[in-house]
Amino acid sequence: MKILVLNCGSSSVKYKLIDMPKGDVLAEGGVEKLGLPDSFLKLKMPDGKKVVLEKNMPEHTVAVDFILSTLKSEEYGCIKDYSEIEAVGHRLAHGGSKYANSVEIGPEVIKTLEECTDLAPAHNPANIKGIQAVSAILPNIRQVGVFDTAFHQTMPDYAYMSTLPYEMYEKHGVRRYGFHGTSHRYVSHRACEILGVDFNSINIITCHIGNGASIAAIQKGKVIDVSLGLTTVSGLMMGTRCGDVDPGALTFVMEKENMTVAQLSEMINKKSGVLGVSGVSSDMRDLEAAIQKGNKRAILAMKMYDYRIKKYIGSYAAALGGVDLIVFTGGVGENQWTTREIACEGLEFMGIKIDKSINTDLHSEEKVISAADSKCKVMVVPTDEEYLIAKDTMEILSK
Amino acid sequence: MKILVLNCGSSSVKYKLIDMPKGDVLAEGGVEKLGLPDSFLKLKMPDGKKVVLEKNMPEHTVAVDFILSTLKSEEYGCIKDYSEIEAVGHRLAHGGSKYANSVEIGPEVIKTLEECTDLAPAHNPANIKGIQAVSAILPNIRQVGVFDTAFHQTMPDYAYMSTLPYEMYEKHGVRRYGFHGTSHRYVSHRACEILGVDFNSINIITCHIGNGASIAAIQKGKVIDVSLGLTTVSGLMMGTRCGDVDPGALTFVMEKENMTVAQLSEMINKKSGVLGVSGVSSDMRDLEAAIQKGNKRAILAMKMYDYRIKKYIGSYAAALGGVDLIVFTGGVGENQWTTREIACEGLEFMGIKIDKSINTDLHSEEKVISAADSKCKVMVVPTDEEYLIAKDTMEILSK
Repeated sequence: MKILVLNCGSSSVKYKLIDMPKGDVLAEGGVEKLGLPDSFLKLKMPDGKKVVLEKNMPEHTVAVDFILSTLKSEEYGCIKDYSEIEAVGHRLAHGGSKYANSVEIGPEVIKTLEECTDLAPAHNPANIKGIQAVSAILPNIRQVGVFDTAFHQTMPDYAYMSTLPYEMYEKHGVRRYGFHGTSHRYVSHRACEILGVDFNSINIITCHIGNGASIAAIQKGKVIDVSLGLTTVSGLMMGTRCGDVDPGALTFVMEKENMTVAQLSEMINKKSGVLGVSGVSSDMRDLEAAIQKGNKRAILAMKMYDYRIKKYIGSYAAALGGVDLIVFTGGVGENQWTTREIACEGLEFMGIKIDKSINTDLHSEEKVISAADSKCKVMVVPTDEEYLIAKDTMEILSK
Repeated sequence: MKILVLNCGSSSVKYKLIDMPKGDVLAEGGVEKLGLPDSFLKLKMPDGKKVVLEKNMPEHTVAVDFILSTLKSEEYGCIKDYSEIEAVGHRLAHGGSKYANSVEIGPEVIKTLEECTDLAPAHNPANIKGIQAVSAILPNIRQVGVFDTAFHQTMPDYAYMSTLPYEMYEKHGVRRYGFHGTSHRYVSHRACEILGVDFNSINIITCHIGNGASIAAIQKGKVIDVSLGLTTVSGLMMGTRCGDVDPGALTFVMEKENMTVAQLSEMINKKSGVLGVSGVSSDMRDLEAAIQKGNKRAILAMKMYDYRIKKYIGSYAAALGGVDLIVFTGGVGENQWTTREIACEGLEFMGIKIDKSINTDLHSEEKVISAADSKCKVMVVPTDEEYLIAKDTMEILSK
């Protein structure tokens, strides 16, 4: 069963065509610079070669149409007819507190996406455009939505409510929703599968650490806390986002710099975190290179980055009443082995001990990295949100 | 040796006259509503009776003068002549990163207070006024300053630096300073004294929890992290302050409510936290009463409050690489036994176990509340910042 997985952003449409239930990726790529005159489709051929196809794509329907026709093309394609595509699974950004599970897309889902647009102004409208583009081109195909917020819907109120006045919750829905839910769900389940343990019987901390980053506490199968909040700015230090910061420091710098709300938003979203502290880059590879050259602010940024992950692990271990499994994933979590080592260093008192010889230089590989005598298992599990979206889509269709 | 301890705020001057080295409090009280026409001095007599003396006190010199003359008065006083007062010790708010220890007050200290006024606009100018008032009335007396930020100066850069752009640190001194330093120092030392252990040999978490609240991680005698930051808004949920909150939620509500910076500052400082969530009160006694009546938002506020302390304990235990001693102090920390119980519940995996029978109903008493088999000691130690200020003053004078 071939399932097309789409991730529609405001200026991009990423796709994978996946053969389920095996999970083989038949085609993958994405439209970039959507809406700009120099938009293009970049795709990866089965032999690994990358192909760039330039085309002016002013909006999502043109982009989805170009993706579909490329899938069918003789030169770059892998299907003969659109009817081979069984269904489309969408990664959807923000479902508020409406959806705790994946769902077949109908008018109700569109309505929820619209209602939650304030909470994800960059993503939800693009998600809607993507769904409508598919409907326009393939009017009879079934579509499934997998919300990035769904997995976190099990949080208790005392974990998801904010400490701002209650009216902010009533009037504007201000609370913690969390993101990266599909990734947290995938790696936590996959880790249990590898270990042969029951997902609902243990306490797990999942660290999805990439340019964006979040960490989740999963107690016997249910998320009880997650570091991203109403927005994607809170929690861990990120590539360009500040993560947790003294709220009073924000009003302080607004006054000092005579900033508008938009300027503050720009600062905490785009100019802070690893980039803001190091002054070098938001990318860990650039940061590593600067550290090798002895750049002091790069060293500081890396120390802050790792330290904050360690503190979240401690915090969530406490919230869980003890942790049995820690999973690292995401670009940094899978590749930056020093971050994994430093984040777990000194946590032996809570049963966490890494085997440094296994962890060192380990990249993007499913692997247990805890020591044999570690009470808590620690693992690296490369994330695969698209597979999970395809799997959810398949399961919903077969119901 | 009689030492007068002063805590000068913008509209209040609190005082204690302490006989050192014994630490006996000879007199205590405070001027309130300073600057308003209905200002008054409230004092506690040796028999516990409270006396209110009304007097129009437009500014700090008048207030200090009235305190001093009351100390000398026949009816309410305990000294015959000002010469009996050996020195004055001041609680000072913000010393930036200048002072890591208490210091005799001279022009340099006044300069530092002025330089750090931006960081503590309500407190530093009042501190200066208090010092100048004493100088004007008792020109020859020696004065010592004990900064609320001093104890935290040992933090490593990766703990005190913020994730905002580095320029904010260079231009405006944006970093974590921490407050309540004198309280954290007092209770951590006092707890070690009671236990008969070397302060420099163990890892301690001190929870100063009152209407304002902060929690500190002290590693072998040195603070390595503290939850209050540049300002007094960050970290734990407080009476009216929000503590940690998604930074993106702040720009979100500013836009939604069309708020100015001053309005946001007012919201996060005065309308959030326990008051904001419960809608009842910022006072834990009122909250308890509402909880008894089944008020759902009061119950939620209390759960959030306790949960966040638990998470900070976990976070700081991780930062410390394990914790040997936890100390609760402050109005809530000393009196709200349910908070202590819930904050420590489920932390057995990190060696923390409370003896519920000892903890229940325990109020403001120096006591070990951990179970006999708890690896980590847990204690209640009522704070006494004035005693420590008097002690520092005495020690500096004797140098």
